Amino acid sequence: MKPRLNIVTLGVKDLQISRDFYGNILGWKEAVSSDENIVFYYQGGIVVGLYPLDKLAEDANISHERSGFSGVAFAINQDSKEAVDQLYFRVVEGGAKPLIKPRETFWGGYDAYFADPDGYAWEIAWAPFWEFDEQGSLKM
Amino acid sequence: MKPRLNIVTLGVKDLQISRDFYGNILGWKEAVSSDENIVFYYQGGIVVGLYPLDKLAEDANISHERSGFSGVAFAINQDSKEAVDQLYFRVVEGGAKPLIKPRETFWGGYDAYFADPDGYAWEIAWAPFWEFDEQGSLKM
Repeated sequence: MKPRLNIVTLGVKDLQISRDFYGNILGWKEAVSSDENIVFYYQGGIVVGLYPLDKLAEDANISHERSGFSGVAFAINQDSKEAVDQLYFRVVEGGAKPLIKPRETFWGGYDAYFADPDGYAWEIAWAPFWEFDEQGSLKM
Repeated sequence: MKPRLNIVTLGVKDLQISRDFYGNILGWKEAVSSDENIVFYYQGGIVVGLYPLDKLAEDANISHERSGFSGVAFAINQDSKEAVDQLYFRVVEGGAKPLIKPRETFWGGYDAYFADPDGYAWEIAWAPFWEFDEQGSLKM
């Protein structure tokens, strides 16, 4: 197998709060997991995981101390500007921290940013020149 | 489109150093990009991007200050323990910081961790109970 990104695991402070956020606000369905401390969301080819931050840091042999920006932005693409607006207002009503309100972007698209319960930055984007299949997988 | 993760963008200090690392050491092929400041790697359904940290933080309206653990772990799955070893030694020889040497894991698999030039944690894993197609996409 060629090396490629298969799993993105977010270290979270409170698993139940994050699980409520991703499950109820974003509407993601949990995959079966053999460990009650980890939550997996299958996303068509890859998996997003939630795992307590201290356990994740211990697993990777890194101090769990963190401050400021994670340095990473995650993007969710939508197929219209209206869909960006709708998802943005849904997550903000659901308790996400607003970072950037929906706007026209310098690169010809339309986006907004919010932070999840642990401060991870998520972009909701409409990018007119990118194509996706019915499952929301990017085609290239 | 249902909301799902489509793009993971890593904020990097030096685009050329990171590009050399992901392109030459991990062997990822760059996708065409209209902006010389951003590098995209298509990974079968999703895209990994590299973008200068300060620009990414500005785009998301977050201070670019960061310290300690990003809080996120990225995993690359391989189809055997030997393949985990090989990739681990290749990235460490290529300059990646070793975090965890290849080991048997408590969850019944085999893994190792390294940090990329910006300190982002990557796990290389063999998970006997997960299946992948020929393109390395996780099947579930």
